[in-house]
Amino acid sequence: MAEKILIIGGTGYIGKFVVEASAKSGHPTFALLREATLSDPAKAHLVDSFKKHGVTILTGDLNDHESLVKAIKQVDVVISTVGFMQIADQYKIIAAIKEAGNVKRFLPSEFGNDIDRSRAVDPINQNFQLKVQLRRAIEASGIPYTFIASNIFSGYALTNLLQLGATSPPRDKLVIPGDGNVKAVFNAENDIATYTIKAAVDPRTLNKIVYIKPPHNIYSFNELASCWEKKIGNTLEKIYVPEDQLLKQIEESPMPVNVILSINHSIFVKGDQTYFEIDPAIGVEACQLYPDVKYTTVDEYLNQFV
Amino acid sequence: MAEKILIIGGTGYIGKFVVEASAKSGHPTFALLREATLSDPAKAHLVDSFKKHGVTILTGDLNDHESLVKAIKQVDVVISTVGFMQIADQYKIIAAIKEAGNVKRFLPSEFGNDIDRSRAVDPINQNFQLKVQLRRAIEASGIPYTFIASNIFSGYALTNLLQLGATSPPRDKLVIPGDGNVKAVFNAENDIATYTIKAAVDPRTLNKIVYIKPPHNIYSFNELASCWEKKIGNTLEKIYVPEDQLLKQIEESPMPVNVILSINHSIFVKGDQTYFEIDPAIGVEACQLYPDVKYTTVDEYLNQFV
Repeated sequence: MAEKILIIGGTGYIGKFVVEASAKSGHPTFALLREATLSDPAKAHLVDSFKKHGVTILTGDLNDHESLVKAIKQVDVVISTVGFMQIADQYKIIAAIKEAGNVKRFLPSEFGNDIDRSRAVDPINQNFQLKVQLRRAIEASGIPYTFIASNIFSGYALTNLLQLGATSPPRDKLVIPGDGNVKAVFNAENDIATYTIKAAVDPRTLNKIVYIKPPHNIYSFNELASCWEKKIGNTLEKIYVPEDQLLKQIEESPMPVNVILSINHSIFVKGDQTYFEIDPAIGVEACQLYPDVKYTTVDEYLNQFV
Repeated sequence: MAEKILIIGGTGYIGKFVVEASAKSGHPTFALLREATLSDPAKAHLVDSFKKHGVTILTGDLNDHESLVKAIKQVDVVISTVGFMQIADQYKIIAAIKEAGNVKRFLPSEFGNDIDRSRAVDPINQNFQLKVQLRRAIEASGIPYTFIASNIFSGYALTNLLQLGATSPPRDKLVIPGDGNVKAVFNAENDIATYTIKAAVDPRTLNKIVYIKPPHNIYSFNELASCWEKKIGNTLEKIYVPEDQLLKQIEESPMPVNVILSINHSIFVKGDQTYFEIDPAIGVEACQLYPDVKYTTVDEYLNQFV
């Protein structure tokens, strides 16, 4: 249980949770940071927090192959948490892992839907297809891997119940994509990070997709609305956006609103997080692997906003 | 004036305006569409509208090199309007243009800031750097080019005065990035398309950056607020977000909110659309080149929402 873990993209949105979870788990933890990040005052508190947690800071850059190989040679596991605009940059990590030759597990940055089973439309489908191609490259490379299908970040979806621009869940009305009956899966970022670190060193997840689908976190939009309504003792007006209207909005909206709407379409209209059963030949469910993890339920998560 | 123009990405947000402007300008106009697009019911009205405008539909795909070369061989000018997640895919267009050997001008998909002069932070800076690298590749290829720095789309920024989630300009309060005094440039999509087509066939714009900076469309956020307030006869509450707070929000927000906020930071805090003078050695301004174009002013654009 003393595998050394390197996180690439550790100051990103999900990355900081993964770095912290790794450090707390007792694994010697390394974060690869760019010079520019280390000298950025806006990132200073994060870097300090990493150091406080005993994380070893390595200086390097995806575009500096030598720095990448040097960092990777020091560890057993590489977890990428780079942002959604850097998906294709991860071919550089694959090349460095191949050269280093010592890595026991690689987790590319996914943290969303199982993109091999999503039926998303553009523009988000363009991003999903980049992730699909990366999966195929990893499989072909022979590098041992685990893909994390973490489903929706609660900090993204529950903070405002997906009402664009709102900073808390609404108390008057709710715009709902589709008919509101399609199930999705909402997970707190720190729980996703905890499961990710456990999966990264688990022989049962070797060359598998790990689905994070806690039974208490699977909700339709209507169920989510009801849960929130009970907490605030108030009924919300609900405005449903049928699929054809949503597709029209996706087509007519500029970036990045069209990205958000196409994510909503995939998850809440197509049901891409829940329409299929996990195939045991290629997938495992995180709660079943790690029943000891006390995850935050959707119901608990929403309490902070009441 | 009979240069044949091919648009790649013509069903995208800005692409449809560019296709229409090209067709209306009298240039024989070609749109490269994927099989999937042609059979997509959500795109049928667009394809119909292209045909009505006399546009020749070519079937092909960025990932099908032969189809790309074949399409490009039929035209003089190639305009890419692919989405912001397909920037790196344009290397395939460069390769096809090189093989075809007949193209007099290539306009890659930019339609925003002059990314060589932007001081953006991540995550949008990742996207800007992809565009920068593409510029360098085009320059190195020897393909004649024009880069369009169109600044902000009015349909994106003026429709809700950049209030995330709002569907019209607000009448109560306004959240403003920075101190509200930094100037930006707002252009209607159809005007951007008109200038793009003119620039695409103009010897004066060969190997130059075309900045679309109409004198009546340069506004600070505060000036924009005032213009709107006069129209509705009402004063809005203004909430200013200082730079350090905005940077913190960028760091803490998930995709794609962090993308939106980092765009706002570049434009409204750093002033990346207006802080520099146009260098006549490399840049030209569209209104000076085409004083005959009657563009929609910001003031006129806002009238539709009163």
